[in-house]
Amino acid sequence: MIQRLALIGLGLIGSSIAHAAKRGGLCDEIVGYARSAETRETALELGFIDRATATAAEAVEGADLVILCTPVGTIGTITAEIAASLKPGAILSDVGSVKASVIDQALPHLPKGVHLVPAHPVAGTEQSGPTSGFATLFDGKWCIITPVPGGSPEALKVVEDFWRGLGSNVETMTPEHHDRVLAVTSHIPHLIAYTICGTASDLETVTGSEVITYCAAGFRDFTRIAASDPTMWRDVFLHNREATLEVLGRLTEDLFAMQRAIRKGDGEMLFDQFTRTRAIRRSIIDAGQDTDAPNFGRNSAKPAED
Amino acid sequence: MIQRLALIGLGLIGSSIAHAAKRGGLCDEIVGYARSAETRETALELGFIDRATATAAEAVEGADLVILCTPVGTIGTITAEIAASLKPGAILSDVGSVKASVIDQALPHLPKGVHLVPAHPVAGTEQSGPTSGFATLFDGKWCIITPVPGGSPEALKVVEDFWRGLGSNVETMTPEHHDRVLAVTSHIPHLIAYTICGTASDLETVTGSEVITYCAAGFRDFTRIAASDPTMWRDVFLHNREATLEVLGRLTEDLFAMQRAIRKGDGEMLFDQFTRTRAIRRSIIDAGQDTDAPNFGRNSAKPAED
Repeated sequence: MIQRLALIGLGLIGSSIAHAAKRGGLCDEIVGYARSAETRETALELGFIDRATATAAEAVEGADLVILCTPVGTIGTITAEIAASLKPGAILSDVGSVKASVIDQALPHLPKGVHLVPAHPVAGTEQSGPTSGFATLFDGKWCIITPVPGGSPEALKVVEDFWRGLGSNVETMTPEHHDRVLAVTSHIPHLIAYTICGTASDLETVTGSEVITYCAAGFRDFTRIAASDPTMWRDVFLHNREATLEVLGRLTEDLFAMQRAIRKGDGEMLFDQFTRTRAIRRSIIDAGQDTDAPNFGRNSAKPAED
Repeated sequence: MIQRLALIGLGLIGSSIAHAAKRGGLCDEIVGYARSAETRETALELGFIDRATATAAEAVEGADLVILCTPVGTIGTITAEIAASLKPGAILSDVGSVKASVIDQALPHLPKGVHLVPAHPVAGTEQSGPTSGFATLFDGKWCIITPVPGGSPEALKVVEDFWRGLGSNVETMTPEHHDRVLAVTSHIPHLIAYTICGTASDLETVTGSEVITYCAAGFRDFTRIAASDPTMWRDVFLHNREATLEVLGRLTEDLFAMQRAIRKGDGEMLFDQFTRTRAIRRSIIDAGQDTDAPNFGRNSAKPAED
């Protein structure tokens, strides 16, 4: 159904889509564009795109499906840039972690006869760039599609099938609900991880080298998340302001309750809070969304043969 | 040097010490005590202790080295309980995540001629109980010893050598400094993880099942830490009140600055904060304190052969 796939942005997600699309035989040709010539060359060398173009507009010419794999802050500019080159009947999609803003940015530039189908694969690693992608990134993970009101059901189906072909489970919801869900499951956890790394670096009484040496007791997990791409994450917070501020407000309120319990020596409250969270972990493992190996099964953890 | 080792508490840390001590041939006999008869039976079945006793006092009789592997809130009571049974020249140690309080609790009950050498292995997993321990838990991890003023240098050396024999690197510092370092690298990260799991469960606009389904984008990492033993962690906060409140105060201050940046749309501030954290991650990997495999190398991550 898809002859030509155009990918704008060839980082972790763009390159992983290309690898997985080739694995699944989901299209005949993949055309790629990235701002940096070096990235385009790397993509051609690794062979996950068939052709690179010098501009985004050239990349989308004749493409049946165009996927924007760039930070959410760039969606408006890029859509404006490629609009005149999109062929009638083409589908424009994206992979942004924020959906209402992506729609707001893209719709004003969308030519008649081009279908917008926003999508968000809930998958990734802390790495970025064209060498970080791999074909199995989306296997068993969820892709959330947020259809626009009055959008084409056929175009929606093409994008749904495409993501299933990449290995994902597919769910649809409204962009506003998506942005609230992801504020909780992704945006605020990232903000916390970034913040606590900063707090730890700025303490006067504990040195940076001590923080690094004794990180195994919890802190190191936060640093993995906080190693994610800064541009992408800046854009997430600028474009999902309301939902992230709402969840952050709730979290700081809960943190103050914990602070009060510690100050008052309220062991019962602390114990109750610490007890209810084990069930959440169990549900996540049962849902196949994480490994049940201690310490994520990483080095120095319990060997599998034990 | 150590003929008889007594372990009070046979959970994750106690059982791992026993496994590692047997692996290293560090003692002739391991006597174990746990409050629950079921735990004692499991320990005997798994064979990581040679003998179990019905009371803590019996376990320490004739032991050269006694290690308390119980939540930090129990140290005073247990020390009082075993004091009369400790042999002259014995060394009393522990594994608590808080050190100043452990010393305050133990010292008043310490018989003359018994040496207190508090220690804290900075290692663990989110699991607990006698079946969760394994011999390699401490390999390459740090054990912090916090000598008491005027303590015996010989006893200190015995405990240092013991932990090196278990596979650890050993460092010494004052109990007060230890408690500040661990507040940053461990206690506050755990408090945050516990809190955010609670916040996520309590939101009205996002269901618990949505949180679990879409957790892969960051949240799931927090749930691993928040699956840790609730009793142990309650005691940590009750016994490291000052240092945890201090770091928590700094963190909430930093969170407010982030909140303000999001509200004002200050992309430059967010980008700067998000950029400085990558260096911390790199240092941790270079220090051998975590794997550099994306996503901790867990399932669905980049295959090693890619």
